[in-house]
Amino acid sequence: MENQNIILETTILKLLDEKKYPTLRDILTTMNPSDLAGIFQGLTQERIPLLFRLLPKELAAETFVEMDPEAQELLIKGFSDSELKEVIDELYVDDAVDLVEEMPANVVKRVLSQADPEMRRSINELLKYPDNSAGSMMTTEFVTLRPSMTVGESILRIRRTGVDKETIYTCYVTEGGRLSGLVTVKDLLLAKDDEELVQDIMEQNVISVSTTTDQEEVARMFAKYNFLAFPVVDNDSRLVGIVTVDDAIDVIQEEATEDMEIMGGMSPSEKSYRRSTVLDLFKQRIPWLLLLMISATFTGMIITSFETALAAQVALTAFIPMLMDTGGNSGSQSSVTVIRAISLGELKFRDMPMVIWKEIRTAVLCGFVLSLVCFFKIMLVDRLLLGNDSITVTVALVVCLTLIITVFLAKSVGAILPLTAKQLGFDPAVMSSPFLTTIVDALSLLVYFGIARILLGI
Amino acid sequence: MENQNIILETTILKLLDEKKYPTLRDILTTMNPSDLAGIFQGLTQERIPLLFRLLPKELAAETFVEMDPEAQELLIKGFSDSELKEVIDELYVDDAVDLVEEMPANVVKRVLSQADPEMRRSINELLKYPDNSAGSMMTTEFVTLRPSMTVGESILRIRRTGVDKETIYTCYVTEGGRLSGLVTVKDLLLAKDDEELVQDIMEQNVISVSTTTDQEEVARMFAKYNFLAFPVVDNDSRLVGIVTVDDAIDVIQEEATEDMEIMGGMSPSEKSYRRSTVLDLFKQRIPWLLLLMISATFTGMIITSFETALAAQVALTAFIPMLMDTGGNSGSQSSVTVIRAISLGELKFRDMPMVIWKEIRTAVLCGFVLSLVCFFKIMLVDRLLLGNDSITVTVALVVCLTLIITVFLAKSVGAILPLTAKQLGFDPAVMSSPFLTTIVDALSLLVYFGIARILLGI
Repeated sequence: MENQNIILETTILKLLDEKKYPTLRDILTTMNPSDLAGIFQGLTQERIPLLFRLLPKELAAETFVEMDPEAQELLIKGFSDSELKEVIDELYVDDAVDLVEEMPANVVKRVLSQADPEMRRSINELLKYPDNSAGSMMTTEFVTLRPSMTVGESILRIRRTGVDKETIYTCYVTEGGRLSGLVTVKDLLLAKDDEELVQDIMEQNVISVSTTTDQEEVARMFAKYNFLAFPVVDNDSRLVGIVTVDDAIDVIQEEATEDMEIMGGMSPSEKSYRRSTVLDLFKQRIPWLLLLMISATFTGMIITSFETALAAQVALTAFIPMLMDTGGNSGSQSSVTVIRAISLGELKFRDMPMVIWKEIRTAVLCGFVLSLVCFFKIMLVDRLLLGNDSITVTVALVVCLTLIITVFLAKSVGAILPLTAKQLGFDPAVMSSPFLTTIVDALSLLVYFGIARILLGI
Repeated sequence: MENQNIILETTILKLLDEKKYPTLRDILTTMNPSDLAGIFQGLTQERIPLLFRLLPKELAAETFVEMDPEAQELLIKGFSDSELKEVIDELYVDDAVDLVEEMPANVVKRVLSQADPEMRRSINELLKYPDNSAGSMMTTEFVTLRPSMTVGESILRIRRTGVDKETIYTCYVTEGGRLSGLVTVKDLLLAKDDEELVQDIMEQNVISVSTTTDQEEVARMFAKYNFLAFPVVDNDSRLVGIVTVDDAIDVIQEEATEDMEIMGGMSPSEKSYRRSTVLDLFKQRIPWLLLLMISATFTGMIITSFETALAAQVALTAFIPMLMDTGGNSGSQSSVTVIRAISLGELKFRDMPMVIWKEIRTAVLCGFVLSLVCFFKIMLVDRLLLGNDSITVTVALVVCLTLIITVFLAKSVGAILPLTAKQLGFDPAVMSSPFLTTIVDALSLLVYFGIARILLGI
């Protein structure tokens, strides 16, 4: 599949160089917009408008939607006014809104000036909704039916008005602008009789979202209900738009990427890796590195305050990395699990007792096994095999006890922090690996030196 | 929304206790199968069959599909043969396959014995495909048309055969079993003339997947092409099934969860957190903790071999956690970014030079800023404010130089490892945080003591 694309790309470039435009057009028209957009991504700046002008109108607009913002901007700047108008006329409103949100101000001005008045009004309407809300995701192009229409009339209406709609498969039934039901094209086609009334076959218990519903929640609803679209209603239950499953897939992927970026200690970015400049990456990463570096100072201070004790028992130093790492890993196992379950809508704050109870039992099991293995490893490898006499049974005990307690603390904190963050309105993903490691590092050292003081008398 | 569900649940339980079955049935029939399955999740074992028998046949089967395997097993065990047959008859083949894959052998035997012969044949056919392949995701219930049919005939065929199909919106055109095109219901409804031939309006360049295509690749194709279904063909280009967008959403979420679990240092699990027992969690977590603990031994050995040097310059110990953490964080930033980009199909092995060049420039920027801040922090806070005289300018220089080099190494390794793993056929996600931390820890200590030896002469 991928090799085929590379061969195709080479062929297209060759034909473009040889100016064999009719052959090129024949090839291009057989292609899918997403694949075409991929070809454009690899072109040099001068060739983009050249190839674009070879596409038939509708395919050109569909390809345009799938392109990177950079290529889109380049094309718009090269378009004549009438070319720009042709592309914009073919866009669905939600795609036009995405475009306007991505482009710099001067380009936006040109886009809006070429959009027809109704499109311009819709774009401006949708731009008012908060970022990442159902309102900003939705499109206003959907099919509405009346309860008193017959099945036959409904099918006729779809055939007459459907061409400009983003989906025709779910039709919404409204009365005075208010949503009162839905019928699918499947319901209409499979209805026994063309004279049946919409109100008799429609689903009345319609699950809808509000314009302010968070896009993550919308995406979760698609995953839960397996629908192709959800209606979006305003505060007065008036139907104002629909969100479709293709946009939900994009949101699901974006949200997962965002969670992973935050868990990896970065500010989330909407740019793909390919499109991110070194400066973008730097800005995304440096604040967290600085913050975490400064926090690690506390860990350093704990070590400093035990400096004399450490100088007396240097053997203890060798176990610091292992204790810190195991603590960090135990904690991030719990936090990652809990954060993901929160993201999928599976865990809520009220599940805290269940989660803590599950985590501490897991922690006890893990801690016990780890320290058992660790004890034998220290006694057999470090003491016997490597002949390090300063490692006594008491030292091994100190290390193993610390291990059990650290795993216990790490897993508890790792489970509690994300749920608490969610409840307080923060992003739970922040409470993962990097942030947690800093806390667990400090905790594990305090436990370590505390136990060492008691058992070794340092 | 959520509160409403809790109120509803309470009402349903109350009506169930009061045996007000007719009222209960009226409420249940207005509900969506996914919400109903949620209600069943909260019920005690005895109540599940009781409530289930109140549902009308079709809704019962739809609700059954959405339930947890535990509840499904419980119900099947309580069903009479005829009840079981009723539910199975209503299932789509792909849902039946999922059921068979989840149930214990004795339950599977009963399920298969109650399925009608055609269903049984289809289930057995689909079970042959490898796990996580398009073949195991697909359903065999789709609408086929012939190229010579007219639009009117096609619509008639859909109306006659569509009721049992998982989707009717994308119809596939076949000749002698081979896939030759597709038409959507939208194409058919918006066709100008009922006498037009399918072969004249069908899309001939059909993008299909093979039965052995990995489900992750299938999910990526849904994200890329915004289709509602993809046809699945066998080695002879014969159409054998379709995969639909609702299944793709589940796969996208599963794959993201799996990546996060691996990045968090756990074996992936298909069970939800709620359904996982303490033993499940333990088994998922302990192998990694043990492996990482043992690997941390090397870090310990590095420290041990510099024990005498450390005893002479105890101040150096205090910076070990900060250096290790910053190295780990820098590395996991890069690895998480690269792993996610690989998962989304954005980066391939051949992009390695581009990735490394981007990462090392980012690393230089980050390392420079971090060490600058670190230098001033050490001189102002540690030396002046806290009055720690053992921290000299040279010590600060050693720490800052180590920082730059560690960040550089961590980001390079963090970028190279996942791409290499992918190329070698391993899961790139394994090369993230926990695993990387162990490598970076050892590297940073070696650099630290190496520089200290040169500059401090220890």
